[in-house]
Amino acid sequence: MKGAIFAPPPATLAPTGESYPLNVGDTWMDPPIGTRMEDLRTADWPGLHQYAPTQGRPDLLAAIAARVSARSGLPVDVSNVLVTASGTIGWSAIVATIMDPGEEIIVLSPNWPLVSGAIRACKGTPRQVPFMGVHDPETAIALVAPHLTERTVALYFNTPNNPSGAVLTRPILQALVSWAAKNDLWVIADDVYEELQYQGEHVPARTLAPDRTISLHSFTKAYGMAGNRVGYIVGPSEIIAAVHKVTTHIFYSSPTAGQIAALRVLGPVGDDWVAAARRTYWDVAQRCASILGVSPPDGGAFLFLDVEDDLARNFSDSGLQGLMHRCAERRLYVTPGTSFGPFPTHIRVSFTSAPPEVVERGVRILAEVLGR
Amino acid sequence: MKGAIFAPPPATLAPTGESYPLNVGDTWMDPPIGTRMEDLRTADWPGLHQYAPTQGRPDLLAAIAARVSARSGLPVDVSNVLVTASGTIGWSAIVATIMDPGEEIIVLSPNWPLVSGAIRACKGTPRQVPFMGVHDPETAIALVAPHLTERTVALYFNTPNNPSGAVLTRPILQALVSWAAKNDLWVIADDVYEELQYQGEHVPARTLAPDRTISLHSFTKAYGMAGNRVGYIVGPSEIIAAVHKVTTHIFYSSPTAGQIAALRVLGPVGDDWVAAARRTYWDVAQRCASILGVSPPDGGAFLFLDVEDDLARNFSDSGLQGLMHRCAERRLYVTPGTSFGPFPTHIRVSFTSAPPEVVERGVRILAEVLGR
Repeated sequence: MKGAIFAPPPATLAPTGESYPLNVGDTWMDPPIGTRMEDLRTADWPGLHQYAPTQGRPDLLAAIAARVSARSGLPVDVSNVLVTASGTIGWSAIVATIMDPGEEIIVLSPNWPLVSGAIRACKGTPRQVPFMGVHDPETAIALVAPHLTERTVALYFNTPNNPSGAVLTRPILQALVSWAAKNDLWVIADDVYEELQYQGEHVPARTLAPDRTISLHSFTKAYGMAGNRVGYIVGPSEIIAAVHKVTTHIFYSSPTAGQIAALRVLGPVGDDWVAAARRTYWDVAQRCASILGVSPPDGGAFLFLDVEDDLARNFSDSGLQGLMHRCAERRLYVTPGTSFGPFPTHIRVSFTSAPPEVVERGVRILAEVLGR
Repeated sequence: MKGAIFAPPPATLAPTGESYPLNVGDTWMDPPIGTRMEDLRTADWPGLHQYAPTQGRPDLLAAIAARVSARSGLPVDVSNVLVTASGTIGWSAIVATIMDPGEEIIVLSPNWPLVSGAIRACKGTPRQVPFMGVHDPETAIALVAPHLTERTVALYFNTPNNPSGAVLTRPILQALVSWAAKNDLWVIADDVYEELQYQGEHVPARTLAPDRTISLHSFTKAYGMAGNRVGYIVGPSEIIAAVHKVTTHIFYSSPTAGQIAALRVLGPVGDDWVAAARRTYWDVAQRCASILGVSPPDGGAFLFLDVEDDLARNFSDSGLQGLMHRCAERRLYVTPGTSFGPFPTHIRVSFTSAPPEVVERGVRILAEVLGR
């Protein structure tokens, strides 16, 4: 019928040539209006293009301290806060400060690839501890304890987790930080996904062991500001001062415009934006999980899919490489589990890197390729 | 006379409470219109707030390669270029790449404090070689050679120099890079002040030894973009790839907005701006030098003043601290020479950190305090 030829395709059909960048650890959404680069005017912000103080702009430090204090119930002042030129370099600087070459950091895995990268860049050794589906404190300690050596200086974990979306519960966190205390280790709590919690409770590890915990935060994941390269760390003032010395030497100061954007987003405009983002992400996460026949994640931006059975069934010759190749032929991109630790039969699927309808179409293709 | 009371003060008089931040290594000028944050619109630049590729935006890499190639006469393609989240972290990443803990880098001094800081942050040793007023190649090598050990991996120099304003001549550069080649050292040429050359010729060391030289560049000094935190390095593609691996691990990607601003400034708008800045800086540099009775610098943003005689004459008890204190009482701030190496009787005076008339009033106060 002639009319049908000219009818628009149903919304669930992909435009010709659409691609699915579900490998990207970023959001498709622009940050809130009022916090974008075009909103930062030289006349309003003297020094907008000049160096900022090396610890961070005083107004931003004060806003961060007030927020962290209000949320955690712990006293936090500006001496407990250091603004860093991204969460990534915050982590690198912590490593460079607390670890000497030849020393070790225990990292719960899976974890984002740069966790190990920064440790190796500082000539240390990451000790990966596979830590999936752990539900009781005894198991947690039984998994971690064998990796302790006389060269261990810290324990690192990320909750909500990239890539798995898992959230560490209060009893498990309590067991981990107590074990770290008993062995005189630093605790590095990577809280960069703290705003993206969908089920259960995000427990900041700092509240359990404020004297030995350094927490890592970012404006990237919460507010769509990855390109601004601004994050911050919070911890005891002595160690913050030591990390500040390192950051001054390695990058001097954090981007000024990104700091002003961060200052503006730490208020109602940012709270509203992240609440809406959280609803959008949670909705698409549930739909994707349902399509793939798995549980939705408790937090974060990813599904971490065990495809062992799918590989055995459909890719017995070519394995994970074959699966990735088949996906790429459909313009669908995902990340192999090996990027996050010893997970050769997992893939990571981002549900925040494209609009929900695009993500959902991509995940339907994935289900088809997997034969689910 | 009543009329005189209401007459405006002469322009050469300072407003009440004026201060003189001649300790700051930055410019008072805003970057060119069209390259400021308010000029970067989300609608025009998709991905403005998202991660950039880790090596840098392809458009910026191409623009840098074309410019460096045109200026140096050497073939340069994007594989020779790495965008870094500031010149400072470019230097840190080079150090982390070419130097193992316990190794050494020879640095011509005076130099900016973070040169040594980054080396020490990587657990290496900076070997400072005082290198002032060197006019012939033989002296240059005689000064440098005794600092060579079996642990030396590189030779670093900065021309035009921060703090001294000195420019290394072609014969001296040729001698230095030949000596480095003979001893199989990397040459790190810090060219961040390349646009601020007032007398003589800026010779990029890469043109003399392209196979072993890594050059360091910045948009900060040339274009008033310190807060944007974007610089770049240029070198042989193998070492650039190795540094890229390190930067990916330690900071991932450089600020996206700063990269777009850099792209926009690499054209006529930036060329005109820096030409005007150069005239302004050179004019004030000459006037300040004349007030203080010294020669104007060949390049850069500073006068590096030997105040040994002034201290002996007027601060025999309190020394450099006394001088700094006396200056601070007049709201005049300068940087002690010890920040730049073994220069206990020098001070650094920035002539770009405030408008020329403010700098000139500050320098007149300095002359008065020094008793010149």
